[in-house]
Amino acid sequence: MTDLDNLRVLLVAARNPLNIGAAARAMSNFGVQRLRVVNPYDVAFQEARSAVGAKALLAKAEQFQNVAEAVADCSLIVGTTAAARRELQHRLLPLDEGAKAIKRHLKVGPVALLFGSERFGLSNEEMSHCHLMMRIPTREEHGSMNLGQAVAVSLYELVRGRKTASRTLAKAGLTQKEKTPARSGDIERLTQLLFQVLSTSEFIQPRAVAAEEKLRRLVRRMKLNSNDAEVLLGMLRQIEWKLRANQHDSER
Amino acid sequence: MTDLDNLRVLLVAARNPLNIGAAARAMSNFGVQRLRVVNPYDVAFQEARSAVGAKALLAKAEQFQNVAEAVADCSLIVGTTAAARRELQHRLLPLDEGAKAIKRHLKVGPVALLFGSERFGLSNEEMSHCHLMMRIPTREEHGSMNLGQAVAVSLYELVRGRKTASRTLAKAGLTQKEKTPARSGDIERLTQLLFQVLSTSEFIQPRAVAAEEKLRRLVRRMKLNSNDAEVLLGMLRQIEWKLRANQHDSER
Repeated sequence: MTDLDNLRVLLVAARNPLNIGAAARAMSNFGVQRLRVVNPYDVAFQEARSAVGAKALLAKAEQFQNVAEAVADCSLIVGTTAAARRELQHRLLPLDEGAKAIKRHLKVGPVALLFGSERFGLSNEEMSHCHLMMRIPTREEHGSMNLGQAVAVSLYELVRGRKTASRTLAKAGLTQKEKTPARSGDIERLTQLLFQVLSTSEFIQPRAVAAEEKLRRLVRRMKLNSNDAEVLLGMLRQIEWKLRANQHDSER
Repeated sequence: MTDLDNLRVLLVAARNPLNIGAAARAMSNFGVQRLRVVNPYDVAFQEARSAVGAKALLAKAEQFQNVAEAVADCSLIVGTTAAARRELQHRLLPLDEGAKAIKRHLKVGPVALLFGSERFGLSNEEMSHCHLMMRIPTREEHGSMNLGQAVAVSLYELVRGRKTASRTLAKAGLTQKEKTPARSGDIERLTQLLFQVLSTSEFIQPRAVAAEEKLRRLVRRMKLNSNDAEVLLGMLRQIEWKLRANQHDSER
């Protein structure tokens, strides 16, 4: 059980089965289970139910004739809108602030999150059931989002930053050596060996002090991890060996 | 002009015209203009171009044969993945942290944001061009998002709460080239030349594909600036020349 079990996603008068399916898929992606469809275009709903992906969620979806019935068991009702301005006396919050209010409420009671029809959004009557309205920060010139995408973005905002094992995620799959910055001693060995290779290949003069300092700074700017430093050392050793072997042969 | 003009959205091997259209629509919603399609299923791309909505954006979309060409003018390459764990040595960040890195970079240079094909995501070869990977925090049990929704969520994270107290970095005394991250085209040239040197010196087998991908990632982890990349290119050219000159002598 998580707070998200208190969330109901309501699609009001959805017309396109692909959008209903996409909304269900996003819900599944973000761990939200309860879908309610209000006054859908029936064919669309039946088609969506029979589409692939997120099947269980759609099969369990509840159907209602109107918003009043669909939100009856909820204690916070939040609508979504593409409009930057409303004449309605609604609190209109940007998505991230609205999401905060929703997250607080999910701890104490059921929340209904309403999405209007593809063409018209929520009607005034439908909005009148809402405590507040939220808006995804799209451009004013092109504010209206695809329904499935609006659901995905809204749910993302609700789950983002949740106990994210962000630290562990950032380093998932890395070995200890890859996580560890290279030791200064290894970096200096790398610098010296690079200097050596560049001398052998006559890129720089042997014992060119300024060049060595430049090289040292260059290598340090790479901020190598321990593993990469070791790999590079191996490469340089081989290159140096090969340069000298060839040289030796050619002098023979 | 905003920072977002520096963002290129890349759809790699997209198969479904509806998804290409949906990605374009989300871009328009969030004010991102530059779409690049890499190796698309041609029919899908043509169908998407002729669909309604976001027309101008799709008409201007650029088409490329492979990732290397499509990211050549960018200096930060970020991939998206549904996988929570990777064996790859990539930095894997949750979306919100990855977005921070992208936003910082958009102030100084072009960023490529890659989305893989609907069925397989990004291949290892495609990922090897990336500096870091990002993951939208979906459930592990159902991680894979619809392409259009993944684009919408990612772009939302990039535009949300745009205000960002611009931190002026301590860059006094640096030349323009030292401040500018190396472009991907130069980094790839560097990778290829290093591969060449390592083949010539028999550190790796010629045409060892896995080695090339490892090398590509290693070079990208160095986060070179434009000046350092140029210096390293010069070094490698000389080393390669010397290796071959000696070899030639010794074979004579």
